[in-house]
Amino acid sequence: MKILNLLRQIRHLALPNVTKSKYSKYIFATTLSVTLSGVAYYHRPHHAYMNNDIKMDFMAKSITPCDELVSNRNSMRSKMEIMIMNLQKEICSALEALDEKSFIVDKWERAQGGGGVTCVLQDGQVFEKAGVNISVVHGTLPPAAAAQMRSRGKQFAPGELQFYASGISSVIHPRNPHIPTLHFNYRYFEVIDCNGTVHWWFGGGTDLTPYYLDEDDVKCFHKTLKEVCDRFDCTYYSSFKKWCDDYFFVKHRNERRGVGGIFFDDLDSPDSNTAFEFIKSCGKAVLPSYLPIVTKNKDHSYNCAERQWQLLRRGRYVEFNLIYDRGTKFGLNTPEARFESILMSLPLLAKWEYCHSPEPCSKEEELMKVLKCPRDWV
Amino acid sequence: MKILNLLRQIRHLALPNVTKSKYSKYIFATTLSVTLSGVAYYHRPHHAYMNNDIKMDFMAKSITPCDELVSNRNSMRSKMEIMIMNLQKEICSALEALDEKSFIVDKWERAQGGGGVTCVLQDGQVFEKAGVNISVVHGTLPPAAAAQMRSRGKQFAPGELQFYASGISSVIHPRNPHIPTLHFNYRYFEVIDCNGTVHWWFGGGTDLTPYYLDEDDVKCFHKTLKEVCDRFDCTYYSSFKKWCDDYFFVKHRNERRGVGGIFFDDLDSPDSNTAFEFIKSCGKAVLPSYLPIVTKNKDHSYNCAERQWQLLRRGRYVEFNLIYDRGTKFGLNTPEARFESILMSLPLLAKWEYCHSPEPCSKEEELMKVLKCPRDWV
Repeated sequence: MKILNLLRQIRHLALPNVTKSKYSKYIFATTLSVTLSGVAYYHRPHHAYMNNDIKMDFMAKSITPCDELVSNRNSMRSKMEIMIMNLQKEICSALEALDEKSFIVDKWERAQGGGGVTCVLQDGQVFEKAGVNISVVHGTLPPAAAAQMRSRGKQFAPGELQFYASGISSVIHPRNPHIPTLHFNYRYFEVIDCNGTVHWWFGGGTDLTPYYLDEDDVKCFHKTLKEVCDRFDCTYYSSFKKWCDDYFFVKHRNERRGVGGIFFDDLDSPDSNTAFEFIKSCGKAVLPSYLPIVTKNKDHSYNCAERQWQLLRRGRYVEFNLIYDRGTKFGLNTPEARFESILMSLPLLAKWEYCHSPEPCSKEEELMKVLKCPRDWV
Repeated sequence: MKILNLLRQIRHLALPNVTKSKYSKYIFATTLSVTLSGVAYYHRPHHAYMNNDIKMDFMAKSITPCDELVSNRNSMRSKMEIMIMNLQKEICSALEALDEKSFIVDKWERAQGGGGVTCVLQDGQVFEKAGVNISVVHGTLPPAAAAQMRSRGKQFAPGELQFYASGISSVIHPRNPHIPTLHFNYRYFEVIDCNGTVHWWFGGGTDLTPYYLDEDDVKCFHKTLKEVCDRFDCTYYSSFKKWCDDYFFVKHRNERRGVGGIFFDDLDSPDSNTAFEFIKSCGKAVLPSYLPIVTKNKDHSYNCAERQWQLLRRGRYVEFNLIYDRGTKFGLNTPEARFESILMSLPLLAKWEYCHSPEPCSKEEELMKVLKCPRDWV
């Protein structure tokens, strides 16, 4: 099975140009996993660049050439690209360790500038569909996007605007209805106006969408996020938790997508380095907040009715993502957007039954109560 | 099975007030179908109002009281309501005759004015999900809708606008991948500005979404629509066929939703009666254009791969309806909209695979070629 996946991955990969810079040592291996005197060999073309003080262990070649990233190691753009590419690898490796399937790796380029790496694990034993996408793009900001940002209070000088955006985005849909779906997304944005002023900010969040409510799981999840927030600002968690509940709202059904987490945008304080350390810490907290829930529930038995309920809730997930999600809208409206990377967030299967409503006092109704009326968890 | 469905229907129905006007004779029966000396008894509470020259055979009580419809029989509002309610019954009866399941009938009211009747057959043997909805609504036009109409050239006087809209809308998703999905929608719109000027128009269309291309089926379908169009205006078919191809376009994938049909809006010529007769004829042509395709293919064998392809294409159907469809957007943005009636168009099941692409020279690729580059069929 691993071999088949390997062949699929190789088919999807453009073979990288092997370059050795003075900073980096390039390791290329297509053999099965072996650990040999401290050097890891991976079952896919592997991109680990060793440096005394910068870890660069990636799923594919970085968008910006590696030696450039190292030369500009102190610029926020480089720090961000290295962070999201390391995080992508870390998340994918952790999920692969739980499944018999591996991630397909697609490196793509954007004609107008930049590119990305999309990793997808589909139809696995534990994960029905899991996507981890990074993108590093730049170019002229579409006028509609500029208007949207101005409406949020950005003070750009008039005229054409250039932008740079890098981020990691992921949705993990497990097969077992007792494991929630996880979504996280962390991004850095720069807009450069014609005066040369650079407007920068960070955004992101991590949120959980259970099919059945396990209060302990939800409490642990929120607690992990709160601990990260509290290390930076004791107002962050309560403010970003509310923002999350407000954002992931399926308006026409008057219900939240899930049990929330944290969500924020336009974070440009106290300074760029601290804000970066905050989102880096949020990224680092993804696995500790989620993996215990996966391992606890992955062998939980479930019946056909529970699976059907999961598929109905996945229909609601699709409704939110296609009707309301700002990221999906922004993505699909961006010229030459890679729609497959945007729509990888959609579940493998989803269901819509006319007027479905859970039985009174059922576990399904218990979940609905929380989605209709969000609770405090910590 | 029929009895179970009957019980479900009864649960969903508010028992009607039985009224006998000088114009109408009300038949109420909950027995199984029996034909008795020319009088049909139906397996659900039945709403047939007999009149010498007006047929009123409905799935539920009309939105406007029946005797009012008859008194105002020459007003366009009454003619339209009678037409769509008769058509709803005709379509539902024809589909039920092919399936072991029956339609659930939901009559609903809108707080701001008007209401509708939603009929849904779900999880049938032939039809996986079929919905036929009529609505007759009126009230104050939301400013966003007014702006959208003005942008299409409507010359309303400034100030608050009242509207009246009645229409029938239907999506039929069969189970067998060799039967296409059918969508049709016919509607009448009035906007009354503060001068008291009534701006009216008709809109609608019928279109086909196959999973496998059967050229004969598509040609017959288009031929039936063309014949209706040609009876009214020999320019209609070519113009409305192109409008349909342009409208049902999934922009981010650069493909059409299906093989088209006809689509038009803002039809206010040559006069209201002729325009009404045109959409009435279009409505009458729905069954002759579609039923032959259903009966021809309903016992066609199919395999798991064909079913999976159908589910993937249904994912595209969901994408179009939730991202682009003007009717869905208008509906979900209307305060107190009945979202279950709007979203009944979504399939029972849909699938999203990352980067799915049909095999070269396969039947699936044959369909894709037509969706990428629409053809002339008659």
